[in-house]
Amino acid sequence: MPHIALNSAEPGIRGLLRYRPETARPLGELTEVLLRGPGTLTRGERELIAAYVSALNDGLYCTSSHSAYAAAQLPGGAAVVEQVRADPATAPVSARLKALLAIAAAVGQGGRAVTAEHVESARGAGATDLEIHDTVLIAAMFCMVNRYVDGLATVTPDDPAVYAAGAQRLVAQGYLPPPADPGSQS
Amino acid sequence: MPHIALNSAEPGIRGLLRYRPETARPLGELTEVLLRGPGTLTRGERELIAAYVSALNDGLYCTSSHSAYAAAQLPGGAAVVEQVRADPATAPVSARLKALLAIAAAVGQGGRAVTAEHVESARGAGATDLEIHDTVLIAAMFCMVNRYVDGLATVTPDDPAVYAAGAQRLVAQGYLPPPADPGSQS
Repeated sequence: MPHIALNSAEPGIRGLLRYRPETARPLGELTEVLLRGPGTLTRGERELIAAYVSALNDGLYCTSSHSAYAAAQLPGGAAVVEQVRADPATAPVSARLKALLAIAAAVGQGGRAVTAEHVESARGAGATDLEIHDTVLIAAMFCMVNRYVDGLATVTPDDPAVYAAGAQRLVAQGYLPPPADPGSQS
Repeated sequence: MPHIALNSAEPGIRGLLRYRPETARPLGELTEVLLRGPGTLTRGERELIAAYVSALNDGLYCTSSHSAYAAAQLPGGAAVVEQVRADPATAPVSARLKALLAIAAAVGQGGRAVTAEHVESARGAGATDLEIHDTVLIAAMFCMVNRYVDGLATVTPDDPAVYAAGAQRLVAQGYLPPPADPGSQS
């Protein structure tokens, strides 16, 4: 049961976004820019970073959601997501993505855990400065979102079908909140 | 020296906001809503939560900045900020704010560290559900911002005057990025 009385039965962050539309809007915009906006990391790669960091943070709802979103947009699908979550070093992803995932893991431990060696390694594998920037911010953002979702004890569905349906919706609609509809029942 | 080549010599998050305006805009909006938007926690109290979490995360630039912002907007000024950073339990702030600071500290450790007892304690001291929500999100947001700023090894000025000037600017202008000016030199 959530720690506070929400205004819907929506699980995870969905219930929080509905509860507080004033913060939902910039949160949705930030997520849309970082995970789906123009960029040289694919949407699948960016979702993989989100899922990986969420798993390291033990954020169950976010891990399930973003693993499904990554699987839906990544060549290799769910199998690759599972291999990355188990051990990025041996997973079938590019050296560049491996180095970025190592940066993301360091961000999860704390900003100072990201070393010049991490960054040189990513650059040596072909990562651009903007990709390094976005990886740090995606990882940091999920350190926020995981804490937001779990800090308020939101509901985490067990049924994988919930996350699969969420992935279909995400791929089709993205992260921006729907336009306000004052006549809607929440 | 920052891990990536920024397009200005601005310190801390300021350099990152200038480097990536697409993410700067929603980050600024989220911060403005949470720390300065309508609400029953004062702006000073909200900045105090930001400073306290940043200090626990060892985020030096953010701690210095938000301590200055809190001091500028809180009765008791810098002395109260220092007492809270040293030990909220004995600091001269309300029981409600103490309980919210305990929630914020738990968020810093991880979302699951926030317990029903934390929340009951805050509610017992008069905190509303919205205040509890916003405290969790402010704390979570600074777990992001601290990691963003330190994960890219941005510059942290030593001179307290830099943060005092930042506080004056913040109080006057808020967190929203200035309108884009294509003719400006960055």
